Amino acid sequence: MAILYHHPFCPHSRFIRLSMAEMGMECDLLEERPWERREGFLLLNPAGTTPVLVEEQMSAVPGATVIAEWLDETRGLALGDRRLLPESPQARVEVRRLVNWFGRKFAEEVSEPLVSEKIYKRFMRAEHGGSSPDAAAIRAAKSNIRYHLKYIGYLIRQRNWLAGPSLTYADLCAAAHISAVDYMGDVPWDEDEHAREWYARVKSRPGFRTLMTDRVPGMQPSPVYADLDF
Amino acid sequence: MAILYHHPFCPHSRFIRLSMAEMGMECDLLEERPWERREGFLLLNPAGTTPVLVEEQMSAVPGATVIAEWLDETRGLALGDRRLLPESPQARVEVRRLVNWFGRKFAEEVSEPLVSEKIYKRFMRAEHGGSSPDAAAIRAAKSNIRYHLKYIGYLIRQRNWLAGPSLTYADLCAAAHISAVDYMGDVPWDEDEHAREWYARVKSRPGFRTLMTDRVPGMQPSPVYADLDF
Repeated sequence: MAILYHHPFCPHSRFIRLSMAEMGMECDLLEERPWERREGFLLLNPAGTTPVLVEEQMSAVPGATVIAEWLDETRGLALGDRRLLPESPQARVEVRRLVNWFGRKFAEEVSEPLVSEKIYKRFMRAEHGGSSPDAAAIRAAKSNIRYHLKYIGYLIRQRNWLAGPSLTYADLCAAAHISAVDYMGDVPWDEDEHAREWYARVKSRPGFRTLMTDRVPGMQPSPVYADLDF
Repeated sequence: MAILYHHPFCPHSRFIRLSMAEMGMECDLLEERPWERREGFLLLNPAGTTPVLVEEQMSAVPGATVIAEWLDETRGLALGDRRLLPESPQARVEVRRLVNWFGRKFAEEVSEPLVSEKIYKRFMRAEHGGSSPDAAAIRAAKSNIRYHLKYIGYLIRQRNWLAGPSLTYADLCAAAHISAVDYMGDVPWDEDEHAREWYARVKSRPGFRTLMTDRVPGMQPSPVYADLDF
């Protein structure tokens, strides 16, 4: 079976877990603490980041967007109209644009600082960069998330799903990043009702179930985290 | 004709200019100063970043990796064995991994800080974030570039081009980012002779010619910049 090296609260890893679940693909999940820079992991991905997918008889596929393209190239056609990267090049542009938006821009401005400061730092020793959470970084991220929710709401007022008429990687990527933040209770759901309605729909996909059972030792999830009627 | 909104020293834009030249595609270049957040440009790319490609009768294609995938999907097959993203899914994984390496990691650690601090800031007014260059950021970037050159050298000792036997997006992306840094004279070419030999090969591609004529007003390029025997 395929192995996914991931961290349960790495938003990029969550994107791939959701995507594989939509495709009906099973895999073994191996938890990696990327900040430890384990030698065996660096051989799989010299960049040292999660997620990394290893399929039998194959070299490693490192990085969420590289894995998403790989999964589409090797399984996409068989999914028919449930394909997560649509057929037409123009529709693919919009999906990839939004995967970049959430996987890079939202990640840099919101999910990576929050996950690093509030979750990863609990487990990082000083020699791996551990320190107390940076309150200014947390404050900035919690402010930035508001305009991203508005942007989701803006898109959803025009379309059924983020990138168009059907569920795509764009929805799964955005929801994955938001889900990690939602665990900490840092998503201001009153900001945009369309964004909230869209997230409720993505959250009810079967792939979300295993994400909802992940726990940070010593840190309870926010009450809305696993609630489908939040 | 297609229009590429770019900045002459934006390394992501340079990657696309090199790629289009390899494909024999012409386009009009329109200079954009992304820090000004021009309204008409934000309509093309809400993320406000260069490059953006606009082809006739088409909506905008924003972002270097999205454009690279688009160009491959619409022109790749016609290129035959000069295709910049190889046929096999496994070979594509390696090209995309390295495009991520240079387009994200190298960008964050080296080319973006150097271009921002030493070039963009010359033209940024205070209200757009202009200030004097950050000496610590410049120093860190100039230190970081060394291990990237070693990594290029490591790959080139095993392969003809960065991602395998033929020229791919990986080479063009890496060379594009390095070229912007080389203008400023900040590439320590004595670090790795294999990296230097590889760059000399990429630099002799026809697409490099127009890049070599770009100038920053008031800032001469380093003597090695346009020299093929540097």
